[in-house]
Amino acid sequence: MASQQKDVGILAIDIYFPPTCVQQEELEAHDGASKGKYTIGLGQDCMAFCTELEDVISMSLTAVTSLLEKYGIDPTQIGRLEVGSETVIDKSKSIKTFLMQIFEEYGNTDIEGVDSTNACYGGTAALFNCVNWVESSSWDGRYGLVVCTDSAVYAEGPARPTGGAAAIAMLIGPNAPITFESKCRASHMSHAYDFYKPNLASEYPVVDGKLSQTCYLMALDSCYRRFCDRFEKLGGKPFSMSDADYFLFHSPYNKLVQKSFARLYFNDFLRNASSIEEVAKEKLAPFSALSGDESYQSRDLEKVSQQLAKHLYDTKVQSTTLLPKQVGNMYTASLYAAFASLIHNQHSSLVDKRVIMFSYGSGLTATMFSLQFRGGQHPFTLSNIATVMNVSEKLKSRLEVSPEKFVETLKLMEHRYGSKDFVTTKDTSLLSPGTFYLTEVDSMYRRYYAKKAANGTTGSGNIAACKNGSLGNGH
Amino acid sequence: MASQQKDVGILAIDIYFPPTCVQQEELEAHDGASKGKYTIGLGQDCMAFCTELEDVISMSLTAVTSLLEKYGIDPTQIGRLEVGSETVIDKSKSIKTFLMQIFEEYGNTDIEGVDSTNACYGGTAALFNCVNWVESSSWDGRYGLVVCTDSAVYAEGPARPTGGAAAIAMLIGPNAPITFESKCRASHMSHAYDFYKPNLASEYPVVDGKLSQTCYLMALDSCYRRFCDRFEKLGGKPFSMSDADYFLFHSPYNKLVQKSFARLYFNDFLRNASSIEEVAKEKLAPFSALSGDESYQSRDLEKVSQQLAKHLYDTKVQSTTLLPKQVGNMYTASLYAAFASLIHNQHSSLVDKRVIMFSYGSGLTATMFSLQFRGGQHPFTLSNIATVMNVSEKLKSRLEVSPEKFVETLKLMEHRYGSKDFVTTKDTSLLSPGTFYLTEVDSMYRRYYAKKAANGTTGSGNIAACKNGSLGNGH
Repeated sequence: MASQQKDVGILAIDIYFPPTCVQQEELEAHDGASKGKYTIGLGQDCMAFCTELEDVISMSLTAVTSLLEKYGIDPTQIGRLEVGSETVIDKSKSIKTFLMQIFEEYGNTDIEGVDSTNACYGGTAALFNCVNWVESSSWDGRYGLVVCTDSAVYAEGPARPTGGAAAIAMLIGPNAPITFESKCRASHMSHAYDFYKPNLASEYPVVDGKLSQTCYLMALDSCYRRFCDRFEKLGGKPFSMSDADYFLFHSPYNKLVQKSFARLYFNDFLRNASSIEEVAKEKLAPFSALSGDESYQSRDLEKVSQQLAKHLYDTKVQSTTLLPKQVGNMYTASLYAAFASLIHNQHSSLVDKRVIMFSYGSGLTATMFSLQFRGGQHPFTLSNIATVMNVSEKLKSRLEVSPEKFVETLKLMEHRYGSKDFVTTKDTSLLSPGTFYLTEVDSMYRRYYAKKAANGTTGSGNIAACKNGSLGNGH
Repeated sequence: MASQQKDVGILAIDIYFPPTCVQQEELEAHDGASKGKYTIGLGQDCMAFCTELEDVISMSLTAVTSLLEKYGIDPTQIGRLEVGSETVIDKSKSIKTFLMQIFEEYGNTDIEGVDSTNACYGGTAALFNCVNWVESSSWDGRYGLVVCTDSAVYAEGPARPTGGAAAIAMLIGPNAPITFESKCRASHMSHAYDFYKPNLASEYPVVDGKLSQTCYLMALDSCYRRFCDRFEKLGGKPFSMSDADYFLFHSPYNKLVQKSFARLYFNDFLRNASSIEEVAKEKLAPFSALSGDESYQSRDLEKVSQQLAKHLYDTKVQSTTLLPKQVGNMYTASLYAAFASLIHNQHSSLVDKRVIMFSYGSGLTATMFSLQFRGGQHPFTLSNIATVMNVSEKLKSRLEVSPEKFVETLKLMEHRYGSKDFVTTKDTSLLSPGTFYLTEVDSMYRRYYAKKAANGTTGSGNIAACKNGSLGNGH
């Protein structure tokens, strides 16, 4: 038997989100919603969205090139590239093949991996696939690269403020500063119609908001129970929330993260965890006889458990919520944006800390897994990851647009979705240097992108010139 | 460091294709094409297609339940399930989640994996992901299951006879009768618009037939060169076609398989392989100065190399072409249907034999990899795989329908694609017992399936009754 690589995990991260955003406070006023409905009810601050210049392909081109440049990674050193996305621009051609343009330029076409798809879970599947590859006998010694890229848009109505957009790139390899505790991993997957996209001509999903939330919480319960069982079997002692330093959740909106954390607290109570204080036990006792389904519907339980878990939420969750609250739901990138927020906020104090991640994709697929932080070696250190991501600057330099302009943009995008034969404005004034953007979709639906140059002029030429695809040009 | 499992590979296989098919000879007459255009020009005999009762979900439900039953695998023993498909019924909810219904019934919801997508390559990605999982530190000791499922349909025109439909299920684990030689694996991936599905409202692809064939052959060349280099580096001696017993190709139509095998022969000539005879060298010499692009366009080279490789084709390829010629292009299932054909035809003489597999997905992604056959232990033996697949019987019991009926069916399916609120005829007279079929798509686009019972009456009830999805029902 061959031996597996050691400490395989995440070496480096970069994140990109559009510079255009709308304030949730303004949006709720514009929508005629009651005050606080989006900001307190959903717990969201701001929402990023793509204009006609950006899409999941351009965002991932930007994130990948940025990561490679900032960490000084030679594109020939990538041996696997996996994309997680639920934003379908083509039903056959993967986003991964668009990203190959970056590598073909350097003569590297020997890169395994395609797109992984199931709602917001695809990024986690891509991540696991990449890590497993490095641990497998087919690993060739090169880095893996995982990309989560999505643009979440909803039809007018109550779900619209739960949109967002971003792409995250993660470099995978051995001796990483962020490693997996793979043996505790627990999944819950099942057939459900909570959120899906059966209307192929529309970018918008069909959503049963209430069912989706119940599905999410049931999957969370199931994963947590399994995770705890495995932890106990492996470690010989019970697991409770006190055994992890941070809890990160897929975040369609922050309120669900608050509910989820409180739900884990309730689980610890039901499992009679020693970490639950007597006073809390008394307050939760009235709910211990509720059936599973009743407990998901009980507003009282929700309120009491959130209050009891509040002090733990502040230390174990709060610092993971920055980007999900500021950018919105990023689908596959959402959980990893929470992770990026944690590194941004706490990078100097994370070594030896354990984080629990809960990934959820409607339909449904869910996994709970744990990561551990280690020292790492430059450039693959937590502080360098924070520096490269440069989250504060990216948030600060955004343009807040009016709700009217936001609605107008979404109308244009509705019209453009699945269409052909158009050019974009190419007005890149809002984009940072190095950002990729869509220039044209031709009469054969072929998409062309350019890169905003470092000096502020448009077009690096490399991608834009690749009119017929590399092979079509005989490259 | 932990150690990897040994001889991880394919333990068991089952295949399903629709009982309805059209003869290519009749179709070419119906289409007014010149005689032999489909049968000799494309090299195809027959084409399977889904009626309104079947789709990629029903076919994969059938293939998976059949495999589990015939090999006596307890559904709780599956720890990972990966689907490869390019037939999009929902843009967010994976086919894998539909298959979870089989396992939920047995209380097993802890199954990792989602759908892998890039044209016809998704099945290979799913296979690699499953094998890597078994070799990784996160393997939990259970089986992996890979499903390739596709329905290939084309708009009226020259590409229509290159359709087909099938689902294949493969069980993955250690100590397998079919193992991977992972270190020689070679990929070629690049950005191309040879075949893609940008028209989201239509099931039909946009195809540039000529470009697609060139892309395929360029990717083949690139993969073969890399594969040979790796083989030589590892084994210390050059690789040529004489070092493998069988060559299997993704097969959109058989003619491309003939061309591909001849292309490998030409590669061996260019690489000055000792296995190429002097007389062949003389005949190929005039083509040695052609540029890559010229060589793809040269009809003379194609003709000469096919003639020279003919005797090798008969021994190394012929027995792999049965199902691809009889069923048609099965997209992700196509390469594995060639593999199933080989086992069907040669199972008693395969032990210690090496096969080279070439997987291609437009867009584009391609990998060449090699497998080796071993003895295996019952029920995981090659002869049992052949018995379970029962290919002869499945082919024999099909109903050949007229081209008119075929065209009429595709018209109905065009109308049904992406639509809601309809019921099917539920006339299952053509389906074998144990076959799943679509009964209804409700006003919310939710799809319901039933299973034809063993006694010939319709409906096992289990799946059909699962109206709101398992979680929706509180299962």
